[in-house]
Amino acid sequence: MDGFVLKGDICWSESPNEIKAVADGYAACLDGACLGVFQSYPESLALPLVDMSGKLVIPGMVDLHVHAPQYPFRGLGLDLELLEWLGEHTFAEEGKYGDLEYASRAYKIFVDDLAKGPNTRACVFATVHEASTLALMDAFEKSGMVAYVGKVNMDRNCPGNLLEESAEASLEATKRVIEGSSGYSRVKPMLTPRFVPTCSDELLRGLGELSERLGLALQSHLSENKSEIEWVKRLCPWSESYTDAYWKLGCLNSRTVMAHCVWCTDFEMDLISKSGAFVAHCPQSNINLSSGVAPITQYMEAGLNVGLGSDVAGGCHTSMLRAMTDAVQASKLRWRLFDQSVRPLRLEEAFYLATKGGGRFFGKVGSFEPGYEFDAVVLDDSEVKSPFPMNILDRLARAAYFCDSVSAICKWARGKRVAGA
Amino acid sequence: MDGFVLKGDICWSESPNEIKAVADGYAACLDGACLGVFQSYPESLALPLVDMSGKLVIPGMVDLHVHAPQYPFRGLGLDLELLEWLGEHTFAEEGKYGDLEYASRAYKIFVDDLAKGPNTRACVFATVHEASTLALMDAFEKSGMVAYVGKVNMDRNCPGNLLEESAEASLEATKRVIEGSSGYSRVKPMLTPRFVPTCSDELLRGLGELSERLGLALQSHLSENKSEIEWVKRLCPWSESYTDAYWKLGCLNSRTVMAHCVWCTDFEMDLISKSGAFVAHCPQSNINLSSGVAPITQYMEAGLNVGLGSDVAGGCHTSMLRAMTDAVQASKLRWRLFDQSVRPLRLEEAFYLATKGGGRFFGKVGSFEPGYEFDAVVLDDSEVKSPFPMNILDRLARAAYFCDSVSAICKWARGKRVAGA
Repeated sequence: MDGFVLKGDICWSESPNEIKAVADGYAACLDGACLGVFQSYPESLALPLVDMSGKLVIPGMVDLHVHAPQYPFRGLGLDLELLEWLGEHTFAEEGKYGDLEYASRAYKIFVDDLAKGPNTRACVFATVHEASTLALMDAFEKSGMVAYVGKVNMDRNCPGNLLEESAEASLEATKRVIEGSSGYSRVKPMLTPRFVPTCSDELLRGLGELSERLGLALQSHLSENKSEIEWVKRLCPWSESYTDAYWKLGCLNSRTVMAHCVWCTDFEMDLISKSGAFVAHCPQSNINLSSGVAPITQYMEAGLNVGLGSDVAGGCHTSMLRAMTDAVQASKLRWRLFDQSVRPLRLEEAFYLATKGGGRFFGKVGSFEPGYEFDAVVLDDSEVKSPFPMNILDRLARAAYFCDSVSAICKWARGKRVAGA
Repeated sequence: MDGFVLKGDICWSESPNEIKAVADGYAACLDGACLGVFQSYPESLALPLVDMSGKLVIPGMVDLHVHAPQYPFRGLGLDLELLEWLGEHTFAEEGKYGDLEYASRAYKIFVDDLAKGPNTRACVFATVHEASTLALMDAFEKSGMVAYVGKVNMDRNCPGNLLEESAEASLEATKRVIEGSSGYSRVKPMLTPRFVPTCSDELLRGLGELSERLGLALQSHLSENKSEIEWVKRLCPWSESYTDAYWKLGCLNSRTVMAHCVWCTDFEMDLISKSGAFVAHCPQSNINLSSGVAPITQYMEAGLNVGLGSDVAGGCHTSMLRAMTDAVQASKLRWRLFDQSVRPLRLEEAFYLATKGGGRFFGKVGSFEPGYEFDAVVLDDSEVKSPFPMNILDRLARAAYFCDSVSAICKWARGKRVAGA
């Protein structure tokens, strides 16, 4: 038997409407799975105690959308909108990842920093390069975190050094990466067509078939920016909408994560709902690149699968604690300035999205309910000083608003300690 | 002669359009004033060197609007709009400051935390309580930071324990605090009518006269929230607008800071411009309380005096580095979702607002131009890792976006070292 009992001030979401909290509680982990949270030490389990009394304990957080190669230029060049920003900043940096030495060095910084934060899971874009994508997978595997990592596919509308020769060549390279990653237990490959503008119909159709045949997860971008949407209309005149293009090409199902979905119509919302695809809501990126704000409470009420994404480097911050407050703040301005029919997001809903909401893409992940994979983060919030005592839920709210003053002093994914935190 | 030369990677604003930067530069301070920034060590000055090579050096930052007694509940209760939030959270906490022991303890946490950040100057609201307001002044004076601190005036529409007996009693208490603060050199008193809803015409008129007679600075709130604006219309039927109410009562001139100004009409904008009053733009607070976003580039282009404010605890974060990115982000969503006639704020403009823009309220403050008071902050940005070298302006952008990962390792106000940083 391999397990332990983690003592602390524990909180977690089971639904968007409520945060459960147990002060001085005990979360039990056995063989990587959670046995539940107990008010007193579960002696009958005969598991060793990890005593984090006084510290906040939350489920490992889930970043449904992040670009690892963009981490080096986070915080820079944010005066542009999406398509210009891609051209001037993103593609220039991603071009460097053909150099495995550079890629390894840059990815190490990214994964090391991620290990220090509150996230334990991520859906990650690499670049089009095979070797550096495998290097990124390797870094994740060694970190102890759990991730889907995708080699990017692009066979049109990008600079020559990132352009794959043909749809077929792109598919073949993707298959090689999938084979190359077969030895990993914590990292899985993910099909990663960048987005419609850089992927031919043939490539998308091929990836859709591959996803279907091998049961592979797939991630892409959908309806982020108005100019992008217009472009897709011109590129796919046969589709009824951006969403419909992915749908008809076989790239929209319950194994899919679509980032953004800022400007989806009701028709598209229904299609996403029907498909079972996950929406990665990336509020900070959508602000930084002046894209807009997705109507996220509307999506939740319509039953869509929603989680949060950092979208580094459209967003600057990897921490899903930060994404929680970004999501709440963005929703307030959307409500105030744009559409009072969609109510703002509450902080407890944002916490759900950052844990169980995104975790559902990985299975039973993101909660301390019995049977869930044991992902847990211990937060030291003692630097957020107060002249009076705070309850756990208030401390959690402050951990979100002051995420950079709150240290993740240790964390586990699937019951295994993540190094570096 | 009392002075020193500070070596580092120095940057500062002289205008909103450009950030000056000197790598491995030397900023000279003599008797509290800046002699300028030099490319090489100014030997002729014969001043000792403070070597901060490799560190970023920026002017001390200026928070034009912060509520010290609200610091304890920062990050909490932000699901409400202004008027409900005042009733449920703010007034409840401010009531505690009748207890000098509690006030001293809470204010120590606030001032100690502020000393660790990049701000060197602030315009601060205390509460209605005389003794604790003087305690707050004392804490600022000892810290080495420079501040205007105001005892709040309220003679209507607030809970009984915060309600002053009459306009006259409120004015008398204010005069006592002014007298009590006469011994301070770094702290000045500031007249602080909370806002029209809690101040009778008589009280505002009396404070306007006092400001005129003694040349005192005055701070208040203006046009933050739509319900508040409607309320002011009912309370001051004789005024043409919220701004006009302050103007006619003698509370709007070049010694005035008005926080927010989110929903001002063109008429009000002209009045603010004519008066020479400063606008404290508080983007995060205006987001958190779902108030809206002030059209800040329009104000700047119209020649209004503008600086940034944290508005803790409507805003959560005291750092003006954070306020810079909040301001840029808020302006982008305002542009995208609400009004494309007002362009988004650029980061260099936000840096100007956070330094010289707000600093102008204090005189020649917020820049390293010769003759400016020497307020400087040394930032260690080594935790913001990168696989390639960055220029100073990119490092400054990242210091703003990752302000909590960037330590203010030392700082000076008027040439004097601030303890705690």
